[in-house]
Amino acid sequence: MKRIVLLRHGESLWNQENKFTGWTDVDLSPKGIQEAIKAGDLLKEKGFVFDKAYTSYLKRAIKTQNYVLDRLDQDWIPVEKNWRLNEKHYGALQGLNKSTTAARYGDEQVLIWRRSYDIPAPALSPEDPRNPRFDPRYKDVPPALLPETESLKDTVERILPYWKEEIFPSLTHIDQILVTAHGNSLRGIIKYLKNISDEDIVGLNLPTAVPYVFDFDNDLRLINDYFLGDPEEIKKLMEAVAKQGQKK
Amino acid sequence: MKRIVLLRHGESLWNQENKFTGWTDVDLSPKGIQEAIKAGDLLKEKGFVFDKAYTSYLKRAIKTQNYVLDRLDQDWIPVEKNWRLNEKHYGALQGLNKSTTAARYGDEQVLIWRRSYDIPAPALSPEDPRNPRFDPRYKDVPPALLPETESLKDTVERILPYWKEEIFPSLTHIDQILVTAHGNSLRGIIKYLKNISDEDIVGLNLPTAVPYVFDFDNDLRLINDYFLGDPEEIKKLMEAVAKQGQKK
Repeated sequence: MKRIVLLRHGESLWNQENKFTGWTDVDLSPKGIQEAIKAGDLLKEKGFVFDKAYTSYLKRAIKTQNYVLDRLDQDWIPVEKNWRLNEKHYGALQGLNKSTTAARYGDEQVLIWRRSYDIPAPALSPEDPRNPRFDPRYKDVPPALLPETESLKDTVERILPYWKEEIFPSLTHIDQILVTAHGNSLRGIIKYLKNISDEDIVGLNLPTAVPYVFDFDNDLRLINDYFLGDPEEIKKLMEAVAKQGQKK
Repeated sequence: MKRIVLLRHGESLWNQENKFTGWTDVDLSPKGIQEAIKAGDLLKEKGFVFDKAYTSYLKRAIKTQNYVLDRLDQDWIPVEKNWRLNEKHYGALQGLNKSTTAARYGDEQVLIWRRSYDIPAPALSPEDPRNPRFDPRYKDVPPALLPETESLKDTVERILPYWKEEIFPSLTHIDQILVTAHGNSLRGIIKYLKNISDEDIVGLNLPTAVPYVFDFDNDLRLINDYFLGDPEEIKKLMEAVAKQGQKK
């Protein structure tokens, strides 16, 4: 059997401060580190053995994966990092508090920016120091591909080439893959794998650091998908994520 | 200018317990973590920006490198792991205490095993559970290449193909490389780079987690090499490493 585990990074310092993060390279919070360790212990308890792992260019995902692999004693497996696994780019909202943004623009507008499928947040200007073209980590990415903001649709379209051409085909020669990324980049993968509509995907709220397992038969047809862990606890975590954008 | 930084991993739990480690996958000690963080901070202070990093299949090196890259905010750079960067294989001595081994066999015999150029420690038997052929991480390595013990000469001969064919040639298209590995695998690289004799290389005692910088001109000729940090402190650290094999 073939298997892919999707993992959203543990809580970051800006999750905790309730800020729009996007491509900002924010670190894990102490709670996020504990979540990552817990995810690693759970995967170990269930006997997962990965052949390869993929993650984004952002340290909250990279470090979550490092903690998981370390708890599994699989630090040594190959890890491939790619900018296409990054979180949705939140444009000019990056760094703003979600509650104060909601108070200023209204819950509804913020919910549109956070959860509409194809409406992006206001774009960064080309000269904004937050523009990814100034960040050396993207120096090898063709400038035309670098976003100044993204809708979820843009994120899905950016991630799918990497999924289709790199991650998924690796299952033809290896058996178990871990992908540690972000709420929205993982939505793109899940939308594609489960053929979820544009309308429904925005209602999927992935909890942080809960392993989401996809099993495939030897012809790489999806046969099963499920979260690892206590269902009641996972439900509460998903509800908490859904509420994050509302003003307090 | 082109640059390679060699870094020996921070103190491991078995450095602390004074045991022969070799290919045993021992974790960093709390002190080793602090050493790694300090090395990262020092490299950051000095403005190092790496394009790529290499490490072994052993977690004490992998985690040291992760800490360093994290302190540099360069978590995202590509990392390549290879078994050829592993520590010298210590054969049947792996897991034994250095002082008790010295008390049993004599300081001189232990010094031969630790510091002669071409005399290996007693080999593991093919059926010993510590034999690398039972470890899934080496499943893609041709069995004939997997050691049951190694002299420093064997380690040098094992590491040089990877150095010559992979690490060093990457300087033709990138500028700064970090290699985080082990006392003896790094001896192999340093011996080659500085053309050190078989006799002299055994006297080189690398301190843990002190960045060792090699500068090259654009034709990749070595022009300078130096340790980063306080020379007096580095000297003391090297003397401490030299003393490790003596009985207490």
